[in-house]
Amino acid sequence: MLKHIEAAIEALNYPQRPKGLYEPIRYILAGGGKRLRPMLLLTAYSLYREDYVRALSAAVGIEMYHNHTLVHDDVMDRADMRRGRETVHQKWDDNTAILSGDTMLLLAYKLISSTGIGRWHEALRLFTNSAIEICEGQQYDVDFEKDTHVTEAEYIEMIRLKTSVLLGCATKMGALLADAPADDCDALYSFAEKVGLAFQLQDDYLDAFGDPAVFGKKIGGDILCGKKTFLVHAATAQMTPEEAQTFLQKLSTPVGDSSGLYSTETEKISDIMAVYTRYNVAERCQQRIAAYFDEAEGELPRLSVDATPLRDYAFSLLNRNK
Amino acid sequence: MLKHIEAAIEALNYPQRPKGLYEPIRYILAGGGKRLRPMLLLTAYSLYREDYVRALSAAVGIEMYHNHTLVHDDVMDRADMRRGRETVHQKWDDNTAILSGDTMLLLAYKLISSTGIGRWHEALRLFTNSAIEICEGQQYDVDFEKDTHVTEAEYIEMIRLKTSVLLGCATKMGALLADAPADDCDALYSFAEKVGLAFQLQDDYLDAFGDPAVFGKKIGGDILCGKKTFLVHAATAQMTPEEAQTFLQKLSTPVGDSSGLYSTETEKISDIMAVYTRYNVAERCQQRIAAYFDEAEGELPRLSVDATPLRDYAFSLLNRNK
Repeated sequence: MLKHIEAAIEALNYPQRPKGLYEPIRYILAGGGKRLRPMLLLTAYSLYREDYVRALSAAVGIEMYHNHTLVHDDVMDRADMRRGRETVHQKWDDNTAILSGDTMLLLAYKLISSTGIGRWHEALRLFTNSAIEICEGQQYDVDFEKDTHVTEAEYIEMIRLKTSVLLGCATKMGALLADAPADDCDALYSFAEKVGLAFQLQDDYLDAFGDPAVFGKKIGGDILCGKKTFLVHAATAQMTPEEAQTFLQKLSTPVGDSSGLYSTETEKISDIMAVYTRYNVAERCQQRIAAYFDEAEGELPRLSVDATPLRDYAFSLLNRNK
Repeated sequence: MLKHIEAAIEALNYPQRPKGLYEPIRYILAGGGKRLRPMLLLTAYSLYREDYVRALSAAVGIEMYHNHTLVHDDVMDRADMRRGRETVHQKWDDNTAILSGDTMLLLAYKLISSTGIGRWHEALRLFTNSAIEICEGQQYDVDFEKDTHVTEAEYIEMIRLKTSVLLGCATKMGALLADAPADDCDALYSFAEKVGLAFQLQDDYLDAFGDPAVFGKKIGGDILCGKKTFLVHAATAQMTPEEAQTFLQKLSTPVGDSSGLYSTETEKISDIMAVYTRYNVAERCQQRIAAYFDEAEGELPRLSVDATPLRDYAFSLLNRNK
């Protein structure tokens, strides 16, 4: 299935001109990644029908859309690298990232609406509404970076909008294109939404507590850049307002700045990790991941079909650290 | 009809939160303008059916889309003012303009697909393809600013993509939603596309040859910022490559720069205008406008209905300088 997706992405036929518009699109889509969203779409479709190639263009459309958000988010976050390669605005410029990014959103619509199978109107409406929610999530993410009074619940709602909604959308879209019963479509949305929350919390967890040898990247990246992950919210939720303010102040202090608070990266990481240990943040986070895991799994008995392939695929990704 | 459009824009119901996402959208849409695209859509619809309120949300969707392009183009062009008000990225920041702009494109899809009347699927497909062409036009516009070998024909193709395609799309969409015959839909597209070319050339013409009292803005703005309008192409088309290069060099020289070429705005404007006079650029431009005018009008006898209201509306806008 993954090979089909990669081949379909490779085979996308862009116009020859203008080169400056289509080259960055080809570049970012060739950057790999797990193709999680198209995989969810096709796996959900396959629960109901065998001919998943018919849904392939929608799957590629969802991946195109996801990459559109990456290109625009990277401009907004001033991120220079992604998946080990230069970001579009870094390799070209901001204007290219904006305009090629806009084109990718339109190409996503073109691809998603081109299947013409099952309840594709409804799939398109779902896509539009989901993409609007994802913009809202991105806006909350921006707002929350400046706001020191964000609660754990608000953080969860932000990541739900920013990342889970698209997993729900992709999975439900597969079911809609396969003309699955309406109740199944809704249960699959909830399943993927909960899985998405578990994924995001796991990302937050692994940054601090993962095994660098397995995880494949340096530990403490979020701590060094002062990112307010679930771990931060799990800690501050147990503090007095004054304690929380002091902690957030420390978290946002860069290594080697004029305050002299942290002179090395190791110093900052171990100082923040000590706080996480004091507040049992690792356990709290693992409990929450397990709870979303269970909630997701609880949706599956409602289905009219056996969802084992979807469950196994989703959970194989969740267990990547073990 | 215009009142209906303004009322529908005013009545758009945005979510309360996140404020940072929806406030800029409300702001830019309240900025007025002729509402040319929704007017074309509803006028075309009205040639076939009386109940144009049913197409109103698509008309507002087209205006939403148009404003999406303005918000993103203003970031790319670093434009600080539009219609006498600060641009979105100027009043807020670039990130807001990118994200609120993305949301506007999604809201446009939502509005356009919500009518559910006539051949709305086809209207949606037309919209997607047109919006992709408009991105291509914007890319050519960016490319051409750096390229000194652009021909008149390439310039016309660029403005066709960048501006005419959307007028064609809006007009044809009105006919599709009214379930007009396919031949009518195509003729209306061609009509509006030609009218769009005439509009754009007229804009270029008025900047140099308009009556400031009627035109409402300063003459020579395009000359001062070195913009390569149709007038420039009409002049260089008659020059040797060396003459053209010298002229383009002069055109791109800012007033008061270290070269000392132009010390006042009047000096630069009259120097460039002298070239326009020498090459009969005003006449050449007027001839071309009249030719597009005629071509547009030539489409109308193909229609199965009397298109007088559409013709009168489009031509009333063309005659605004007289």
